[in-house]
Amino acid sequence: MSHVDAMMVRVYLSESNHTLKQLLACLHDELKVRGVTVTRGIEGYGASGKRHAASLIDLSLDLPLILEFFDRPEKAKAAIARIAHFVPSGHIVSWLVTVESEESEC
Amino acid sequence: MSHVDAMMVRVYLSESNHTLKQLLACLHDELKVRGVTVTRGIEGYGASGKRHAASLIDLSLDLPLILEFFDRPEKAKAAIARIAHFVPSGHIVSWLVTVESEESEC
Amino acid sequence: MSHVDAMMVRVYLSESNHTLKQLLACLHDELKVRGVTVTRGIEGYGASGKRHAASLIDLSLDLPLILEFFDRPEKAKAAIARIAHFVPSGHIVSWLVTVESEESEC
Repeated sequence: MSHVDAMMVRVYLSESNHTLKQLLACLHDELKVRGVTVTRGIEGYGASGKRHAASLIDLSLDLPLILEFFDRPEKAKAAIARIAHFVPSGHIVSWLVTVESEESEC
Repeated sequence: MSHVDAMMVRVYLSESNHTLKQLLACLHDELKVRGVTVTRGIEGYGASGKRHAASLIDLSLDLPLILEFFDRPEKAKAAIARIAHFVPSGHIVSWLVTVESEESEC
Repeated sequence: MSHVDAMMVRVYLSESNHTLKQLLACLHDELKVRGVTVTRGIEGYGASGKRHAASLIDLSLDLPLILEFFDRPEKAKAAIARIAHFVPSGHIVSWLVTVESEESEC
């Protein structure tokens, strides 16, 4: 089992701004980054201080969405540069991780 | 596009202990940290080994809640010191991240 | 308040492959790792490019599941080695974190 350096990237979205679909098309279909997952928060506060919460989680249309993916650092950085214009400044966070791999490529 | 160092902080809570409201008031209203999101797990095990699970996710009242925020490292550290008494020892985890920013401040 | 080095481990699963139960039994019951949480994504794409999405989140049986735990680095590494055969190559990601602790052990 080998270890491969990778970069985890997290993008903070809101259900109300409809960029998720565009981002997924860009990241998955075009850039083909790996390990893309989308999680829905139950409450969140943006930089603006505006609260996004759900009393009835399945009915709310303005909850925080967190899109994450990881890939080789150079590919992840290229993806960040490509998607940065989709989201407001400060909404993309990244950190280095280690991926367990049986093969030598990430 | 510039890169800013930041600290991601994760706090492990349970729906049953009612500290989320206090934490959000402290973090958001008082300390004004950025990027606060709350996610509900579907299953979890604390340090005690007690299981928190949901067969009917919307009806369970004791699922794990994960509160996360990120901000400048010094602000995040101050926030950790401020909120540490709200949760048991070992329930706050942090790591350094990079934030994409068009401006020079995080 | 002291700081303890730990390792966060994330395992990417799918609801359809039924390994969650085995993993939890292994991690929690046998290895007794700390801070195990399971989160369900609302959409995800594996390395294969196969899409896992939910239009009706509570009815879908093939959504991404993210299992996370953290523990002392040596214990987390041993856990990774133990569980690696449960999941495809490239589905386990880890990174170093800091845990706030009143005691000296993680």
